[in-house]
Amino acid sequence: MFRSHTCGELRPAQVNTTVTLAGWVQTIRKFGAITFVDLRDRYGITQLVFNEQHSGQLESNPLGREFVLQVKGKVIERSNKNITIPTGEIEIDVIEFTILNKSVTPPFTIQDDTDGGDDLRMKYRYLDLRRNAVKRNLELRYAVNRSARNYLHENQFMDIETPFLIKSTPEGARDFVVPSRMNAGQFYALPQSPQTFKQLLMVSGYDRYYQVVKCFRDEDLRADRQPEFTQIDCEMSFVEQEDILNMFEGLVKRIFKDVKGIDYSEQVERMTWEDAMWQFGNDKPDIRFGMKIHTLKKPTSVFLNKNDQSDLINGANFVVFDGAESVLAITVAGGASYTRKQLDDLTEWVKRPQIGMKGLAYIRHNEDGSLKSSIDKFYSEERLKKIADATEAQKGDIILILAGAEERTRKAMSELRLELGEQLGMRKKEEFKLLWVLDFPLFEYSEDDNRWVARHHPFTSPKPTQISTMIENDPAIHDAANYLSHPYAQIKANAYDMVLNGNEIGGGSIRIYQRELQEKMFAALGMSKEEASHKFGFLLGAFEYGAPPHGGIAFGFDRLCSILGGSESIRDFIAFPKNNSGRDVMLDAPSSIDDTQLKELNLKINQA
Amino acid sequence: MFRSHTCGELRPAQVNTTVTLAGWVQTIRKFGAITFVDLRDRYGITQLVFNEQHSGQLESNPLGREFVLQVKGKVIERSNKNITIPTGEIEIDVIEFTILNKSVTPPFTIQDDTDGGDDLRMKYRYLDLRRNAVKRNLELRYAVNRSARNYLHENQFMDIETPFLIKSTPEGARDFVVPSRMNAGQFYALPQSPQTFKQLLMVSGYDRYYQVVKCFRDEDLRADRQPEFTQIDCEMSFVEQEDILNMFEGLVKRIFKDVKGIDYSEQVERMTWEDAMWQFGNDKPDIRFGMKIHTLKKPTSVFLNKNDQSDLINGANFVVFDGAESVLAITVAGGASYTRKQLDDLTEWVKRPQIGMKGLAYIRHNEDGSLKSSIDKFYSEERLKKIADATEAQKGDIILILAGAEERTRKAMSELRLELGEQLGMRKKEEFKLLWVLDFPLFEYSEDDNRWVARHHPFTSPKPTQISTMIENDPAIHDAANYLSHPYAQIKANAYDMVLNGNEIGGGSIRIYQRELQEKMFAALGMSKEEASHKFGFLLGAFEYGAPPHGGIAFGFDRLCSILGGSESIRDFIAFPKNNSGRDVMLDAPSSIDDTQLKELNLKINQA
Repeated sequence: MFRSHTCGELRPAQVNTTVTLAGWVQTIRKFGAITFVDLRDRYGITQLVFNEQHSGQLESNPLGREFVLQVKGKVIERSNKNITIPTGEIEIDVIEFTILNKSVTPPFTIQDDTDGGDDLRMKYRYLDLRRNAVKRNLELRYAVNRSARNYLHENQFMDIETPFLIKSTPEGARDFVVPSRMNAGQFYALPQSPQTFKQLLMVSGYDRYYQVVKCFRDEDLRADRQPEFTQIDCEMSFVEQEDILNMFEGLVKRIFKDVKGIDYSEQVERMTWEDAMWQFGNDKPDIRFGMKIHTLKKPTSVFLNKNDQSDLINGANFVVFDGAESVLAITVAGGASYTRKQLDDLTEWVKRPQIGMKGLAYIRHNEDGSLKSSIDKFYSEERLKKIADATEAQKGDIILILAGAEERTRKAMSELRLELGEQLGMRKKEEFKLLWVLDFPLFEYSEDDNRWVARHHPFTSPKPTQISTMIENDPAIHDAANYLSHPYAQIKANAYDMVLNGNEIGGGSIRIYQRELQEKMFAALGMSKEEASHKFGFLLGAFEYGAPPHGGIAFGFDRLCSILGGSESIRDFIAFPKNNSGRDVMLDAPSSIDDTQLKELNLKINQA
Repeated sequence: MFRSHTCGELRPAQVNTTVTLAGWVQTIRKFGAITFVDLRDRYGITQLVFNEQHSGQLESNPLGREFVLQVKGKVIERSNKNITIPTGEIEIDVIEFTILNKSVTPPFTIQDDTDGGDDLRMKYRYLDLRRNAVKRNLELRYAVNRSARNYLHENQFMDIETPFLIKSTPEGARDFVVPSRMNAGQFYALPQSPQTFKQLLMVSGYDRYYQVVKCFRDEDLRADRQPEFTQIDCEMSFVEQEDILNMFEGLVKRIFKDVKGIDYSEQVERMTWEDAMWQFGNDKPDIRFGMKIHTLKKPTSVFLNKNDQSDLINGANFVVFDGAESVLAITVAGGASYTRKQLDDLTEWVKRPQIGMKGLAYIRHNEDGSLKSSIDKFYSEERLKKIADATEAQKGDIILILAGAEERTRKAMSELRLELGEQLGMRKKEEFKLLWVLDFPLFEYSEDDNRWVARHHPFTSPKPTQISTMIENDPAIHDAANYLSHPYAQIKANAYDMVLNGNEIGGGSIRIYQRELQEKMFAALGMSKEEASHKFGFLLGAFEYGAPPHGGIAFGFDRLCSILGGSESIRDFIAFPKNNSGRDVMLDAPSSIDDTQLKELNLKINQA
């Protein structure tokens, strides 16, 4: 061992003992013949004092930032203590030292507020990883990993490894494939998730399975997507939805406790997908703040169980509202004081192409009780008052209104709500609000193919009461314009998403475990019998041999860590991430391979 | 929840309570109107009693093997208790039951001694996994995983995930590659191990790293090799070899304790590679038994520090010994009683092509003190006595002698020793003997390329005292015939293998952490500067910024589990293994992929 103690370990109790430390030179300060060095390792920083007896050695072998040093010395009490660090009450009076390795000057400073840009830090990721900010993230990641494993272990879950070289069954996202040298012209695929394997493990009777596991999706990378990512993947047998919700809110609460010291004792809120869309315009609403959407007007084809308040706005000859599919409002508490400039900025904000609205109407509910609106011309103060009542606006508030096509307008209103929440400081990093979103539609309509696609995945069960609807109806859509009136449009999935602060951190479902229903599902998704059998014959086969009722969930581990760590970016929580083009700039990968490798794989690069 | 208790849970204390169980029908026995069913789940088996009130329901919906059943009933005491199972004192008087899912007849019996052949069991792996024998293996695997993680956690190791989509740097084994869609003509590689990443993490100051991680090698599969396999991968900073040996024999002892209940309190034996080869003809000797090799004759070019005993056999005009490079002997205790037939069988055994010897000589040391040999014609009883003394043969023993080329003969003698150990019952499954093999040669000679190859890998450090030998000498081999006299041939690696019962279960080394030495290593392996920079530039770069002394080890997790589980085959300890052609016969993978997939990847299958 090159050390007797770590750099985070020594306290006044060790004063007068002789110790050996090893670590990196963080800073060097000279005061005449005395040199102070902060020595850093994973565990902390300890101050070293080189007295004049070392001047000669230091002159012939000068120290530099990030040099690796081994130091033998006596622990002494510091005269001016630094109470901000655990070792701040002592320092080391150096007896002898060895430079274990030198360092050239790093391309950026190894500090929390580094001067290194993103590209530079990624190229020298091994130096970036030295920074405390990054180290804390990876430590948090390990703490989450450890906490999750402990909870799952205590609840009889078993870690069972599933294979990485599997079969390509693209469904939704693209597979990464791996050419097989021994089977010319054939390919393995890397798993997008261990979905079918964990279901097979349930068929095999393993009862409770988990894995912290890498998954792969060859998608066009949006910001903050990685081609390889990690899931906490879980599955249970003989359960209903309620059992899963209880087990896994327990998991997340345990992580809060172990990792953040937070007692999340309150019941986790639950909301149907329909309510989430109705109230927040979003299937993963941030419920740290209210500011719910009020639907003044909607088309009849959506939200069949909800009523709009179109009587409040109809008959005013206001073409913008009259011509819009939907008119949506939110009330901003205290917003009556918004200046003209602020309202103009918000209007510009909703008109940006990413949001795509034509404008923003407002109704000020002044402190004096009067109402002043950008649509005064069409609505009397009396009518405005009724709208204000309907949108729960108090004196001093402002009502913001968007109008347009239902889907776009609701999405825009959701974005506006989040933006305002941000501006008003209602999205606090250290406040954590969990939410279960339930009762998703089982299917989505694909306009391109005029067929159904699985909203979650093809293994998700419909609600038990709707199994017969699915079995008994023909999935074919004969009237594309009215796809919403097809019986399948109303089928709800036995699926659930866990949302944390407006981010989906996990999702899962109760699975289909009957061959007949699974075959109907594949058919509904436009798969021929042959295709279903080629891709998923093993699963259909397994369902014939006594498959138990089962369900599960997968948490996005990278995302969960980033939210717990208070960061927007999952890259900060991955030791060696790829950039937005899927490249590892440190390794310079992907790269070309040898012709002999290509030949062995029976492949040619298509130059066309 | 479909159950109130598991099938392994109920005891006499629960008698008279009403419970709900769910599981699989293991057996059905009818006695008149009463039906007994053993219901199975992961946790155990519980006996169900269906009284005549259920006869009607059972007749219209007959139960079958592997049906999935939910049963509500009263716990009652059994009249004839089965003390061989934990639930054997009670049974369930069924009140009502539901068939949750049916099963067709399985293609083989779900029992320890199944009637299913290997291929059938692999095709229906989800049924094979139901067998207790396989379940116990996966439970053992999870217990080893858990034990290792706990030990490493308690010793400040951090689980840090390293990437799977990396750069192809084939060195030794072939890489599996993954075509990049977004970077036409370029490929990622799947890691053969996280070697360079864990070293970078040490450069980054993470101090102690571990991972239980999948690795990939595209090798021609020998029996019991898998293209994807799992390592317990570890690395530590500021350590010397002794620190690593202590830390990781601690890990294996902890696993013995946690998983097998074995207190492995004795010191783990250590042996140099040279002694292992000299005494056992094998770099992973099984030391559960002795029967060491005695070298009667060897060439001068090998084992420079060892003396043979050629004076005992020279000058007898026995052309077989005189013409052989090496003559090796082992003494089999009690072997004097071997019959002619037994000796003929052993002779045939060493003449098999896999062993490749021309014959087997023997010297019987009879109980009466006389010596009788197959080489009587050349050696007097007096000379035979001297050989017997030198080979430590007692009265009643037999000495077996092989002669031929050094390498082949030593290997053959090692095989013969293991075979005899097996025959004589000296290789007991439940006896575990650990061994560290140390001081491997750093380089091996490649005849094909007339250059050095790394015996461990290119990141392994030479012994500290031999660094200068490596730096100061030209690695080029000018006299191929005498490569053994090149200074590099004598350089020993700072490397270690952990051997358990004759199997290498782990291996590692102290790493190079100086750029100059690493460059010299790459040069020694015939890599040009450009090639070294293209493949490993990031690592060479990292060594310039303060790399600490470090070292590590990787355990073959699959192999470790199989030995602890007393099995020859790692496949039994992998949930979804591939067969010897690298195929997953359950999934039918690898398989062809769509033309659109190929096109997106800019690839063509080479039909030539």
